[in-house]
Amino acid sequence: MTRLRIRIDFDTGGSIGPGKVMLLERIRETGSISAAARTLDMSYRRAWLLVDDLNRIFAEPVVSAAVGGKHGGGTALTAFGERVIEHYRAVERDAFGAATARLAALEETLNADYGAGSDPPDDGSFSGDPALKPGCKPS
Amino acid sequence: MTRLRIRIDFDTGGSIGPGKVMLLERIRETGSISAAARTLDMSYRRAWLLVDDLNRIFAEPVVSAAVGGKHGGGTALTAFGERVIEHYRAVERDAFGAATARLAALEETLNADYGAGSDPPDDGSFSGDPALKPGCKPS
Repeated sequence: MTRLRIRIDFDTGGSIGPGKVMLLERIRETGSISAAARTLDMSYRRAWLLVDDLNRIFAEPVVSAAVGGKHGGGTALTAFGERVIEHYRAVERDAFGAATARLAALEETLNADYGAGSDPPDDGSFSGDPALKPGCKPS
Repeated sequence: MTRLRIRIDFDTGGSIGPGKVMLLERIRETGSISAAARTLDMSYRRAWLLVDDLNRIFAEPVVSAAVGGKHGGGTALTAFGERVIEHYRAVERDAFGAATARLAALEETLNADYGAGSDPPDDGSFSGDPALKPGCKPS
């Protein structure tokens, strides 16, 4: 099924997207930043920086950490962190609901062989750059 | 104003987002992939690869290029390319409209000083990793 990936960019310069929200959900499940990071193949440092960023983006912290222990011990999502997840997932749901007809229209125009590394339409409609080998994808 | 950045991921593996759509809009304005790329501080090669990718994602080409000339000469958006832009911008509009209340709720929870590189809330709610210097942002 076609999916929407949504990033919310705030005027303050902060933003939240699927990565930060999934990290919060994994912290809720595992009770630990390091365990959550492992489930996402993310370094502890990266996960800590994302949580620290979330704690700066909002006026209230999204997690509260027990003192002591390796990597600061257990980490619990705050009630506010729960609300951030809920709002973000609701934005996703509502956005997808509002976009359904447009997405269906786009789906009807897809090249089903795209994943198979098909060649571009051979109708001369696009004169390729000979310096580029066919089949190369955007980096 | 809070903004949504939306990427549409299709089952085929293709995806469209703000970057590809803005490139198509610049091609429409400039009539040239290279001129469009310049307005976006993008290399011609990068722009060409994105257009080539779009021509593979969909069953119809999004641009048609005049034969000959530097970099394949002028490039015109096809009627189908216009529809892709229209659908994408409508998805953005409808998604934003559907998300307004949730976005307003999130806006009320923001830390207004985020951009100013504020320190995390000093309420002991998050025990930072001493190995990390304060103020560092996610890479």
